[in-house]
Amino acid sequence: MPFIRECIVTTVDDGGNVHVAPMGIHEDENRFIILPFKPSITLDNLEKQGTATLNYTDDVRVYAGCLTSHNDWPTRDTTIIQGARLENCLAHTELEVIRKTDDIVRPEYLCKSVYEATHAPFHGYNRAQSAVVELAILVSRLHILNEEKVNREIKYLKTSVEKTAGPREQEAWRWLMLKVASFRESKKESL
Amino acid sequence: MPFIRECIVTTVDDGGNVHVAPMGIHEDENRFIILPFKPSITLDNLEKQGTATLNYTDDVRVYAGCLTSHNDWPTRDTTIIQGARLENCLAHTELEVIRKTDDIVRPEYLCKSVYEATHAPFHGYNRAQSAVVELAILVSRLHILNEEKVNREIKYLKTSVEKTAGPREQEAWRWLMLKVASFRESKKESL
Repeated sequence: MPFIRECIVTTVDDGGNVHVAPMGIHEDENRFIILPFKPSITLDNLEKQGTATLNYTDDVRVYAGCLTSHNDWPTRDTTIIQGARLENCLAHTELEVIRKTDDIVRPEYLCKSVYEATHAPFHGYNRAQSAVVELAILVSRLHILNEEKVNREIKYLKTSVEKTAGPREQEAWRWLMLKVASFRESKKESL
Repeated sequence: MPFIRECIVTTVDDGGNVHVAPMGIHEDENRFIILPFKPSITLDNLEKQGTATLNYTDDVRVYAGCLTSHNDWPTRDTTIIQGARLENCLAHTELEVIRKTDDIVRPEYLCKSVYEATHAPFHGYNRAQSAVVELAILVSRLHILNEEKVNREIKYLKTSVEKTAGPREQEAWRWLMLKVASFRESKKESL
């Protein structure tokens, strides 16, 4: 069982356009495995540039934003690789692909870290941030999940948000809940 | 509603002995509120020294360890305040008490940050770490929680541990689950 970092992956295309995606990255003895879906922009960029950046931010709006069309997060050039990082991340790791294993659903890109930097201190866990990350994962799987299970888990997660969130976590939670509502609305219409 | 940092609070007594406790710290515009229970070592130390350290670690065994008698975490002297910090934390904040509001259950210590330092990069969220923090909170409240509710939440949290934990998270989870079992055993015996 691998350790999985939930982080924000940034990749660039040939024109330097930055793509931002929340992903679960498998970590194994200083090697990292990125598993992008086919088709996806992250996959295209990884394939062409052979590089990616893992961004570690405690602004959970970035996680929620990637699923709800709030994508305008400032970025900067990376230090070693041809790529980009989030301007406001707490730390980031720059990766180079060292081996690719193809797959019809999720090809596997084995990467090594070539650079890492810290930009701001981590300030400890926040239960609302964890709840937003969990809700983001639920939202990304709404089309395959049972509605009752989703409701049950939202009810559980909501308690942490009500008890411990600041404004950023509240905003991220709202964006995701609007997405849940619009998904259900569109499902009703298509019946 | 305040933003709450779940972190490890270290305080010292007159003899320099370090006390380590996981606590939810309220943050409000660069002020921090510590709410220790009466009686507690954190309360005694805060009262006498007027200082405390917030330690931010991604080693969740420290959270689990405080509830399960695994307390031997290496510490170092702090930089500005008379106190101590965890040696292996990612970052820490040194606090001075600026006002105390007494209470029969949980007095409120309003503090200001006088120093902060980063020691290692944050590596993103990990769902198993969040699950361990949640289980630690459940374990600290076993005596007031309904057993079925605890079972239901453990079942939910366990999935994240099975999917995303590394060795440290697995160990922390095991310590806490042994505590749940021993609590229930002792309850049965006292019936």
